[in-house]
Amino acid sequence: MVDRRSNQSGEDSLIARYFRPIATDPGAFDLGDDAAVLKAEGCEIVVTTDAIVEGVHFLSSDPPDTVARKALRVNLSDLAAKGAAPAGFVLTLALRKVDDAWLKSFAQALGEDAALFSCPLLGGDTVSTPGPLMISITAFGRVPAGKMVHRSGAKPGDRVVVTGTIGDAALGLAILRGGNVADAAANDGSARNLLIGRYRVPQPRNALASAVRDHASAAMDVSDGLAGDLAKLCAASGASAVIDLESIPLSAAASDLVSRRIVGIETLIAGGDDYEVLCAIPEDRVEAFAEAARLAGVPVTSIGMVVAGASAPKFIDGQGAELALERLSYSHF
Amino acid sequence: MVDRRSNQSGEDSLIARYFRPIATDPGAFDLGDDAAVLKAEGCEIVVTTDAIVEGVHFLSSDPPDTVARKALRVNLSDLAAKGAAPAGFVLTLALRKVDDAWLKSFAQALGEDAALFSCPLLGGDTVSTPGPLMISITAFGRVPAGKMVHRSGAKPGDRVVVTGTIGDAALGLAILRGGNVADAAANDGSARNLLIGRYRVPQPRNALASAVRDHASAAMDVSDGLAGDLAKLCAASGASAVIDLESIPLSAAASDLVSRRIVGIETLIAGGDDYEVLCAIPEDRVEAFAEAARLAGVPVTSIGMVVAGASAPKFIDGQGAELALERLSYSHF
Repeated sequence: MVDRRSNQSGEDSLIARYFRPIATDPGAFDLGDDAAVLKAEGCEIVVTTDAIVEGVHFLSSDPPDTVARKALRVNLSDLAAKGAAPAGFVLTLALRKVDDAWLKSFAQALGEDAALFSCPLLGGDTVSTPGPLMISITAFGRVPAGKMVHRSGAKPGDRVVVTGTIGDAALGLAILRGGNVADAAANDGSARNLLIGRYRVPQPRNALASAVRDHASAAMDVSDGLAGDLAKLCAASGASAVIDLESIPLSAAASDLVSRRIVGIETLIAGGDDYEVLCAIPEDRVEAFAEAARLAGVPVTSIGMVVAGASAPKFIDGQGAELALERLSYSHF
Repeated sequence: MVDRRSNQSGEDSLIARYFRPIATDPGAFDLGDDAAVLKAEGCEIVVTTDAIVEGVHFLSSDPPDTVARKALRVNLSDLAAKGAAPAGFVLTLALRKVDDAWLKSFAQALGEDAALFSCPLLGGDTVSTPGPLMISITAFGRVPAGKMVHRSGAKPGDRVVVTGTIGDAALGLAILRGGNVADAAANDGSARNLLIGRYRVPQPRNALASAVRDHASAAMDVSDGLAGDLAKLCAASGASAVIDLESIPLSAAASDLVSRRIVGIETLIAGGDDYEVLCAIPEDRVEAFAEAARLAGVPVTSIGMVVAGASAPKFIDGQGAELALERLSYSHF
């Protein structure tokens, strides 16, 4: 309904209350128009879109501030892997009802992350749904013309490099769902919190974007599982890869669970939600890339090599045996 | 699950089968990457986002081809009203299940409209949801720097102009829902089809975009009801308006239902889904605008004047009396 005095519908007033204060970019026009303006500034615009759905990508019990950060950061992670500098985003929010406490916390965290990553809110749409909460974000980045880093481009001989650690988020989700991982982690509060935090709030590697752009022959973010995403990068590049399982970077918490045989390494490399950058670095760029990563404060680890061939990447254990993977990654269908 | 031979998940294969064939723009990279590239071509990028939800913006019984067209066209309508030329779009599709017949028809119609309106599919995200089907589109347009047409900018003395006819879509929805409008329209198949068609498949006025940019002092599209949307345009412009009810353009089918007193004019001007352009045209531009509209083949009608003041727009009937409106427009909350 529209309040005739204020000319505002419930939807407009919701937007005014929670989202206008965080839409500080001049191109957002205070969210008072039907569209936003994004300036290219002589660059090409990189566009990525990722939605998160309650019960699928996040849990109903996840706090609203972490839901907001995850919704934006999964998109920021794509921009980082493509070598693009964040330029802004638009938000579609499908809500069952207006829950003021939830929205207040959601919008505040979203605004904080928008500022932290220099990725301003430009606009959006708020709709009612009888279904699960869904947040769809389309994010924009800028790259010099022709400089977006692709999935294709990896060449035999390139190093396979990942940022951060792999598998923590899958363990965090397993803990939130209960069961044997939750039981095993119950006595170590700090490990438990770290793993859950990694599931709820990804750490996108935007600080590494220019190093990726300068040095990587191919890159993507790891969102659906390292094994499956590497298979996609290899397929796009017309190549294969051999990965040394023991060199895959694990957090202390994940290492502990693996060494206690609570989970196998295959669970970690097929689990989703890492939001790390996976890239191929030509041998003669490895040192320069590592130095740029050090300057950016982003840990990077070489885990194997791109090789010729069309088969799925091989994961080799300490005894030289190939790991059999039943499942490479998460898929919605 | 990922098929190890093809390295394709069900989601990837769905995208490859239905959406890759329609993603013909080079910036879409055959939907095989994590992001798309949009070239600004020396312009500013206008960004708009609108989602449609099953049971809210379209009916479960609506055919998939009309759902696809509506999802894209509601966004194209915003670009038209902002004076922007379509440049591309990204799609987020939240599906309960993979229904091949539905997806085939949906994707084909989407591709046809993308070609028709020169608005290529650049990328997207497909997610599973236990809830209603939802399609969220973010569309991009290009305008010369600083030339996006705003909601604000209307001045007292400007003409209020709308394209096409008002209220047809609201009647189409009423017919699909059954009840007295459906009964009244039951015997006139062509009127019934026209009104339902107007609900299901908007006709965005992109042909008028450059005329809007050249001549309008303010513009927006009419999506939530003429009365409410005009109130928003006036509020953004710090003005009010006086509208001559009898000059509001109605289709023959709508006129007939009004003259038979099946519906009142207030139902038509407070009903949603028109997707016509509403704009304010300075008096000395009215003729040039009308001529540009004629050349573009878009019917335009002057329905009143912008006036000074802060009150909601007044709708005056043939006897000089003001129409009392209980409800100005549709709102989700």
